Amino acid sequence: MTETSALQPVVILVRPQMGENIGAAARAMLNFGLTEMRLVDPRDGWPNPRAVAMASGAAGQVLDRARVFPTLAEAMFDVDHAYATTARGRELTKPVHTPATAMAEARGLVAEGRRVALIFGPERAGLENDDIARANAIVTVPVNPDFPSLNLAQAVLLMGYEWGREALPAQPAPAAKRPPGEVPATRLEIEKLADHWEEKLTEARFFFPPEKAAPMRLTLRNLWSRLPLTRADVQILHGMVRQLTWKTRAD
Amino acid sequence: MTETSALQPVVILVRPQMGENIGAAARAMLNFGLTEMRLVDPRDGWPNPRAVAMASGAAGQVLDRARVFPTLAEAMFDVDHAYATTARGRELTKPVHTPATAMAEARGLVAEGRRVALIFGPERAGLENDDIARANAIVTVPVNPDFPSLNLAQAVLLMGYEWGREALPAQPAPAAKRPPGEVPATRLEIEKLADHWEEKLTEARFFFPPEKAAPMRLTLRNLWSRLPLTRADVQILHGMVRQLTWKTRAD
Repeated sequence: MTETSALQPVVILVRPQMGENIGAAARAMLNFGLTEMRLVDPRDGWPNPRAVAMASGAAGQVLDRARVFPTLAEAMFDVDHAYATTARGRELTKPVHTPATAMAEARGLVAEGRRVALIFGPERAGLENDDIARANAIVTVPVNPDFPSLNLAQAVLLMGYEWGREALPAQPAPAAKRPPGEVPATRLEIEKLADHWEEKLTEARFFFPPEKAAPMRLTLRNLWSRLPLTRADVQILHGMVRQLTWKTRAD
Repeated sequence: MTETSALQPVVILVRPQMGENIGAAARAMLNFGLTEMRLVDPRDGWPNPRAVAMASGAAGQVLDRARVFPTLAEAMFDVDHAYATTARGRELTKPVHTPATAMAEARGLVAEGRRVALIFGPERAGLENDDIARANAIVTVPVNPDFPSLNLAQAVLLMGYEWGREALPAQPAPAAKRPPGEVPATRLEIEKLADHWEEKLTEARFFFPPEKAAPMRLTLRNLWSRLPLTRADVQILHGMVRQLTWKTRAD
């Protein structure tokens, strides 16, 4: 695990209760490359074997490196900009972000060399107003208002996911990233395939009645050229028509 | 909980193992307004008291309404378009989406009245290739390659989150421009087409040698489900194989 703290937000868990949740939060962080955890006054002290048991493997290193502080103010000693995650409905005069807009903004701040923190409250009660007062902005996850309860690790996961999304060089082309090794067929290969099928279908008297033959051929040509066929697909389709008509030729 | 099944994706859990994870998945679904769960051959049978204990409250209703099927094929009886969630690195010739691009596309499909499914595999092993062959596209979450492990409920959570994000009014309508008059084939139509071709190709001894028959069938299934076929295309393709093999049958 490399030291990337200057390039990523710090995750601060305020008065976390269950060790398991701290471990699960460490896992969720690492899933998206976040490695710097700070703990404010954890209920059961620190280190916590239940946290370690839940984290396991590389996520254990996030816990090993976690720093513990008695107060949120101290945990924020080097933080330039902080986002407080809360359930919806707080009456506070701060900007309210979704995870997406918060992490987009955070990306810009981090790129400028600013220290960003994501602050999460205790499992049941959430952050107190005194905690939120220390943050520059609020983040709430857009959830079903009839069932809004997210646990601590889930909240961390969604923020990490949005951080990771923003860290991607660019959103991949929306439609269809091709798996590597899949070579799209060339126009010439498609044309030969179309010729092969047209020949076999002609022999099989597919283009019937005669007055419909021309539009049918055109429809088929359009079909081949419209489909996103790979070179491998083209080979299969050659093999299919060859095999299907093999018996016919042998008559 | 209102009946909104036509307006949202179905979540299909294939061979889930732990009841707790089924319950946690139900919670994650409901967090983002998804209420229709289907279970394929759950390891510990159904209903499962551990699932109920984990779900609690309104999420229990998601479990109450969950439908159980012996096979994935049966669970997909009314599904038009399916996304299979996998860890990265599968060598399959299907479009690979992020949760974001998948749910943007799904939004467009659902708006057109199409049935969309999100398919999740068993906890450890994930989906098998036979399962994935039934899907139209793959979704992988962009995670830290050094620590990619997401649990079942987390994978459901991220897909639900992206679905919920798209459901927000501010999000622009996803680009799903279809040429007018072009009706996409349903999944069932594609499956019948695949069956028809498989039957004829089997008669023509296309799947040879025997030890290669299974992977060849799988490749072909993947080919059909990956291509953006219209209803008209499907009719043509039925006609083609019928005509190509007509002489053979008449021998």
